[in-house]
Amino acid sequence: MPSISNKGLSMPESPIRKLVPFADAAKKRGIEVIHLNIGQPDIKTPQIALDAVKNNTITTLSYSKTEGSERYRSKLALYYQKHGIDVSAENILVTIGASEALAFVIGSIADTDNEIIIPEPFYANYNSFSVVFGVKVVPIVSKIETGFALPSIADFEKSITPKTKAILICNPNNPTGYLYSKEEIKQLALLVKKNDLFLIVDEVYREFVYDGKQHYSALKEENLEEHVIVIDSVSKRYSMCGARIGCIITKNEILRKTILKFMQARLSPPSYAQIAGEAALDTPQQYFDEVIAEYEIRRNTLIEGLNKIDGVKVTSPQGAFYCIVELPIKDSDTFAQWLLEHFNVNNETIMVAPAAGFYATKGLGKNQIRIAYVLERTILKKAIHILEQALKEYSLNEN
Amino acid sequence: MPSISNKGLSMPESPIRKLVPFADAAKKRGIEVIHLNIGQPDIKTPQIALDAVKNNTITTLSYSKTEGSERYRSKLALYYQKHGIDVSAENILVTIGASEALAFVIGSIADTDNEIIIPEPFYANYNSFSVVFGVKVVPIVSKIETGFALPSIADFEKSITPKTKAILICNPNNPTGYLYSKEEIKQLALLVKKNDLFLIVDEVYREFVYDGKQHYSALKEENLEEHVIVIDSVSKRYSMCGARIGCIITKNEILRKTILKFMQARLSPPSYAQIAGEAALDTPQQYFDEVIAEYEIRRNTLIEGLNKIDGVKVTSPQGAFYCIVELPIKDSDTFAQWLLEHFNVNNETIMVAPAAGFYATKGLGKNQIRIAYVLERTILKKAIHILEQALKEYSLNEN
Repeated sequence: MPSISNKGLSMPESPIRKLVPFADAAKKRGIEVIHLNIGQPDIKTPQIALDAVKNNTITTLSYSKTEGSERYRSKLALYYQKHGIDVSAENILVTIGASEALAFVIGSIADTDNEIIIPEPFYANYNSFSVVFGVKVVPIVSKIETGFALPSIADFEKSITPKTKAILICNPNNPTGYLYSKEEIKQLALLVKKNDLFLIVDEVYREFVYDGKQHYSALKEENLEEHVIVIDSVSKRYSMCGARIGCIITKNEILRKTILKFMQARLSPPSYAQIAGEAALDTPQQYFDEVIAEYEIRRNTLIEGLNKIDGVKVTSPQGAFYCIVELPIKDSDTFAQWLLEHFNVNNETIMVAPAAGFYATKGLGKNQIRIAYVLERTILKKAIHILEQALKEYSLNEN
Repeated sequence: MPSISNKGLSMPESPIRKLVPFADAAKKRGIEVIHLNIGQPDIKTPQIALDAVKNNTITTLSYSKTEGSERYRSKLALYYQKHGIDVSAENILVTIGASEALAFVIGSIADTDNEIIIPEPFYANYNSFSVVFGVKVVPIVSKIETGFALPSIADFEKSITPKTKAILICNPNNPTGYLYSKEEIKQLALLVKKNDLFLIVDEVYREFVYDGKQHYSALKEENLEEHVIVIDSVSKRYSMCGARIGCIITKNEILRKTILKFMQARLSPPSYAQIAGEAALDTPQQYFDEVIAEYEIRRNTLIEGLNKIDGVKVTSPQGAFYCIVELPIKDSDTFAQWLLEHFNVNNETIMVAPAAGFYATKGLGKNQIRIAYVLERTILKKAIHILEQALKEYSLNEN
C-alpha cells in the first residue's frame, strides 16, 4: 500500500482517548466507568442558546461569512468590552472551536523547525497542532511544589533562540488549574516585547475563577497590540462543547489578514452553532454565578478528599476545572489501564488521564494524573473513594 | 512586530473572495450584484433536516465522537450501499466539511515537498490545503476543447516522480462540470495501483449528474481498497453549506487510524449539524428529482445563452453546477473587477470568478471565468444579458 506521511506517523495520539478501548471493554463487562478523564461538563447549556437554535428560521442553510457572522462578532466585542477588554468586531475572527483557532495561529506565525515555548504540563493538543505545522514545542517545567506557577523569566530567557516565534500559555490553566496573576502576565508582556515574539494566551476558561480572584486578560496589556493573540471558545463557558465555535482575537492586522487566508480555505464556521453562540452571549449573570459556585464546591470536595489519601499530592486550583494529582505510584499509564481492566468497587471504577501526555519532556508526569471535576459532588466523592481503595490494592501489586 | 510565517505569506487568497471588496463597494453605490461567482445554491434545505434541528432535545450540547456519531455513520453507510457502494460505518470518518476532510487526507499521506497530481483547472482550495502541508501540486492541463475530459494517462505517467503520493480528482468536477466516465476512473485505478499511489476523489457533487448519465464512484473499484480515498459533504447535496459536515471514506485501516489522530486534535464535528446531516439522509427521492431537474434546466438556460454570445466558448457540463467559460478578452481578473467597478445594466451587474485561480500553471485560464448556475433561470437569463452587453462595451475599451 502507499505509505503514510511522516507527519501522520508522528502525530501523537490523544492522552485522553488512548484508554477508551479499555473503558469500552469495562463497560461491556458491566462495570460503570466514572469519567474523570475528559473536560466534558455535565452542566446544562443556557436555555437561551438552546432556544435560539430550536426557534431558528433558516430555510436554506447557507455558508456564513468566513470570519464569522457580523452580528455574532459585534456582540462578541460587547462581551469583551463588558469584561474591560477594549476590542472591536474587526479584531475577532470566529473559528471552529479553540482547536481551529490554535491551528490557524500556529500556521500563520511559525514555519517548520520554528519553536514555541510552553510551560509544561500543557494541554496536549498544543503539541498536535505543532506537529501539523512541523513546529517544535520547547517546554519549560512548572512544578507542583509551586502550584504550577509561571516558571521564572530567566528560565524563559534561557529557552529563547532565533527560531522562537511565540510563548503560549493557557490561563486559567488546563491541566493544572493555575490562574496566572496580573504580575505574571506583565512579566511575559515585557519578555515578548523585548524579544519580538508573539504571546498566545488560551483564555477559554476565563470565566472559571474561584476564591474571589480576578482573571487578567493579556488583551489588557497596552502597547502589546502587535504581539498578543487570544484564543477563546464557547465550549466550556456555556457548556457548549458540541457547538465547535471559538475565536481568535488580535489587534495585529497583518496577522489577521494571514489567518483569514487559512479561514477562506475552510469556507465558514458552522451556522447553527453561531446562532447558539450569539444567543449565549445574553446568558444572565445568574447562570455563571451558579455554575461557578457549583465548580467551586466540586473543587473543594475533590481537593479535600484527595488530601486525605495517603501519599497523594495536589494543589488547590484557582481556575478552570482540572487538577494535576501526584500519586504514590510509578507509572500512571499502567495504573489508569489497570483501573479499567482489573479494578472496581461495587462494579464501578474511574477513568483518569495519565499526565505524561501533558508533558513534552520525556519521563515527567509519570506519577501524575489529570482529573477534571466536571461531575456532581456525590459522584466525585465516590470517585475519590474508588481512587483511595485502588491505590491501596495497586501499591501492594506494583512491581 | 514579530514576523508572519512563510507558509502564511504563501497561502493563496481565495480567487472567489478577492473581488468581494469591489462587490461590496458596488452594492454601496446602489448596484445589484448577481453572484455567479460562488457555489452557494438558492435551493431550500430538505424540510426533514431543518425540522430535526428545530425539534432537537439537547440540554447539554456536548462533544460528539471524534469520528462522528455512530448513528450518523451507520446511516451514511446505508446511503452509500443504496448507491451500490459497499462500505460500512467503520470506513467512514465524519469531518467538518469536505474542507477538513481534504486537509486531514493531505496531512496523513504527504510530507513537505511531496507531490499530488491534479488535473487543472481544479477547485482552488486543493492548492490551499497543499500549501498548509508544504505539499506541491503538480497540475496536468485538461482542455476546453475536449470538454475538460481526463488528460491522457501518458500525461499522468510523465508527471509521476518518486515524490508523488496521490492523484486527486473531483468528480463531477468543480470548476468544469465534467463527469469522469467509468472508463476514465478505471484507467486511474490501474495507474495508482501500478505506481503505488493514493487516488483521492472528491465526490461532493455525486448526485448532480445530468442527461441521464450515471456517476461512477471510485469506491466501486475492486482490489483498490488500500488506494482509494473518497471525500464527501452534505453541503451541496442537501443545500446545507452552512452545516460544515463532510466525511472521508476509505477502506485503508492504517490510513484511517492516522487520520483519526488529526481528528482527535480538533475534538469533534459540530453536533447540531450532525443532527441535520443524519436527518437529511431520509430526504425523499422526489427532492433530488426536482433539484436535479431544476439544475438541468438552469444549465441548459445558461449554456444556450452563452453559446449565443459572439466569441464565447463553453462546454456543456454533465455534472455539478459550474462551467468554465472562455471569453473574448485578455484578462478575466481585470474584466471581473471592471464589471463590479465600471459596468451595470439598469443598476445591475454580475460577479464572476476569474479562472486563473483554478489553474496552477501560470498564465492559464486568463481568458476564462467560472460561472456557478445556482440561481433561478430568470436571474441567469438576466446575467447572460449583462455579460453580453459587458463584453460589447469592454472589448471596445480593452487596450
